[in-house]
Amino acid sequence: MSRSLDFLTEALRRLPGVGPKSAQRMAFHLLQHDREGAAMLSRALYQAVDTVHHCAMCNTFADTEVCELCADESRDRTLLCVVETPADQMMIEQTLTYKGLYFVLMGRLSPLDGIGPRDLHLDKLIGRAADGVVNEVVLATNFTNEGEATAHYISEMLKARGLKVSRLARGVPVGGELEYVDAGTIARAMLDRRSA
Amino acid sequence: MSRSLDFLTEALRRLPGVGPKSAQRMAFHLLQHDREGAAMLSRALYQAVDTVHHCAMCNTFADTEVCELCADESRDRTLLCVVETPADQMMIEQTLTYKGLYFVLMGRLSPLDGIGPRDLHLDKLIGRAADGVVNEVVLATNFTNEGEATAHYISEMLKARGLKVSRLARGVPVGGELEYVDAGTIARAMLDRRSA
Ligand SMILES: [Zn+2]
Ligand SMILES: [Zn+2]
Repeated sequence: MSRSLDFLTEALRRLPGVGPKSAQRMAFHLLQHDREGAAMLSRALYQAVDTVHHCAMCNTFADTEVCELCADESRDRTLLCVVETPADQMMIEQTLTYKGLYFVLMGRLSPLDGIGPRDLHLDKLIGRAADGVVNEVVLATNFTNEGEATAHYISEMLKARGLKVSRLARGVPVGGELEYVDAGTIARAMLDRRSA
Repeated sequence: MSRSLDFLTEALRRLPGVGPKSAQRMAFHLLQHDREGAAMLSRALYQAVDTVHHCAMCNTFADTEVCELCADESRDRTLLCVVETPADQMMIEQTLTYKGLYFVLMGRLSPLDGIGPRDLHLDKLIGRAADGVVNEVVLATNFTNEGEATAHYISEMLKARGLKVSRLARGVPVGGELEYVDAGTIARAMLDRRSA
């Protein structure tokens, strides 16, 4: 009926978890009931694609060369916490138990998905951890198989360069994903972190 | 961390069925793995908001003043089928049992949601059905309580103006929504349609 509508439905399917039926429902909803929301989403997407890049220090999403957290002079620059995603970083921030800086992998090692050390830009992490100021790297990848394998790989890599490496204590349930664990559990795991 | 990312996450929540967690996952996915998809979705939204309006004849979404189906000279102009949504219209088209034209309500009467006859623009339907060419209106609203009430209301309204009105036969399961019914059932219901 409408090529613009077909194009919109097709484009909505690029969103993760959105199949043909829900893409159609979303398109109908926006055009029928929320054109203002559609225009806002259009602008937000354009602006994000145009503006958002990776922080030069911690690799998380940022609008500026260095993100606010990395630029914050009150953080302890001798501690570097490695997480898989920005969501995991936010969870740790919420526990208020950690005052150091972060490195966000933006993923995890996953041979089955073809994600190896090179895809994770681990060279950027090495450069960051070996800046001469960092004296402990806290591995806070998920306690899933892939997260554990990633932590193990990074641990070996950094220890070979003489860095002190620790891992969140196993207060986090085995198989659990940080994003869905309560802040109290993460807080205890942070305090009980052990040498890796 | 990134205002543009926060704005994008917020805007994605305007999509129906998308909560805070999935909006965040969508935003991360687009920025990390599919910036091309994000740019495409931005353009599709902009274009749809700019281009898509309602067909002057059938009220469905269209890029042109009158949609392709309404403009198709081979369709039987004496039959007018009333459906709730463009998705319902597509389902009926797939059955290949109907050769007339459509009127798409873009909704249903729903007092609980504050949707009355005026909100559905039923005056547009009256004008369309009373064009002197239409001689039967087939009501194909859903067989839910709201769809049945809508059919009843429209039926009374059109019969009062001397029009012949029919309803899809109850081959469609009671409480069922057309969009999720198999084409065979809809085909039989179309053939068995009864005077309303
Ligand atoms: Zn940073
Ligand atoms: Zn039309």
